[in-house]
Amino acid sequence: MKLLEDRIRRDGKIRENGTILKVDSFLNHQMDVALFNQMGKEFFRLFGGEGVTKLLTVEASGIAVACIAGQYFDVPVIFAKKSKTKNIDGGVYTAPVESFTHGGVYNVMVAKEFLQPGDRVLLIDDFLANGAALEGLISIVAQAGGEVVGAGVCIEKAFQPGGERLREKGFRIEALARISSMSETGIEFC
Amino acid sequence: MKLLEDRIRRDGKIRENGTILKVDSFLNHQMDVALFNQMGKEFFRLFGGEGVTKLLTVEASGIAVACIAGQYFDVPVIFAKKSKTKNIDGGVYTAPVESFTHGGVYNVMVAKEFLQPGDRVLLIDDFLANGAALEGLISIVAQAGGEVVGAGVCIEKAFQPGGERLREKGFRIEALARISSMSETGIEFC
Repeated sequence: MKLLEDRIRRDGKIRENGTILKVDSFLNHQMDVALFNQMGKEFFRLFGGEGVTKLLTVEASGIAVACIAGQYFDVPVIFAKKSKTKNIDGGVYTAPVESFTHGGVYNVMVAKEFLQPGDRVLLIDDFLANGAALEGLISIVAQAGGEVVGAGVCIEKAFQPGGERLREKGFRIEALARISSMSETGIEFC
Repeated sequence: MKLLEDRIRRDGKIRENGTILKVDSFLNHQMDVALFNQMGKEFFRLFGGEGVTKLLTVEASGIAVACIAGQYFDVPVIFAKKSKTKNIDGGVYTAPVESFTHGGVYNVMVAKEFLQPGDRVLLIDDFLANGAALEGLISIVAQAGGEVVGAGVCIEKAFQPGGERLREKGFRIEALARISSMSETGIEFC
């Protein structure tokens, strides 16, 4: 999606020897809602024919884009909650997620009442890198007996293994901007 | 806002002897985006004439309503990040917030680059009870030299002291549903 690629080129900041892309001026701290609207519309163009019954994301920075996209799909939007608690009551589906950014493992959880067998779930997130968060969400949908119709992510770091691994497993992963390489001097898209 | 009051009556669940209101089927876990749109429109009706330059909320459950409202205001939406870290670099404004729900104190923080003197900031959140989160956001806007034009919250527990204390300090606080009392047998609005 050229609009997003141009914005990343203009306002993204590359840090830590090309390992970190900061997009907090428009995506995950300050948010450009007009841009989100274009992204939501694009997710609907890509997945609108899939009979999606729920959108599922994970807190916190996936919530905004999922909600804006939800306006086009006209279905409920669920955000999985993060918790470091191991004691979780029986009313939730839960999956462990390894955090590469912050280290350690956290749980994502969704109350059982919000996912049913037969649900056709589109996953939404802002970033795809190692794919750990999406795999957690995929596990949750499977536990509920639902089906993942795919995942729509804003930015994929295609030089990290998550996207490839998920596509090899047969999931349809659509990223609006796929970064093939980045360094202090510039950024390349696939 | 009758639409929201009716929804709380229908789908809200009161727990723990009338102290907890669960609205996670439509507001802060599963989200009814069409309802959020009506709430966003109402916040714009209330504050649209105030020359708002930024919307500010706090992760996670404030993000959705702030983003949807942001479409009407057509201004950037910022979410303050929560952190338990005490070591915060110099690039952020930060304020401590006491959590009554989870216990303990966390920090909310906003990167300095996103708030400037002259900004007219509307605070948005899903719940107002003790007012601790809003006071943290008010502190952050003050640190930046901006002005808080008011706060729009979805649900105020008016039997808890936050709203009254903030209004006494001169802040314009608009809640779309103000609960005067609740118990296992029912819920009353102001």
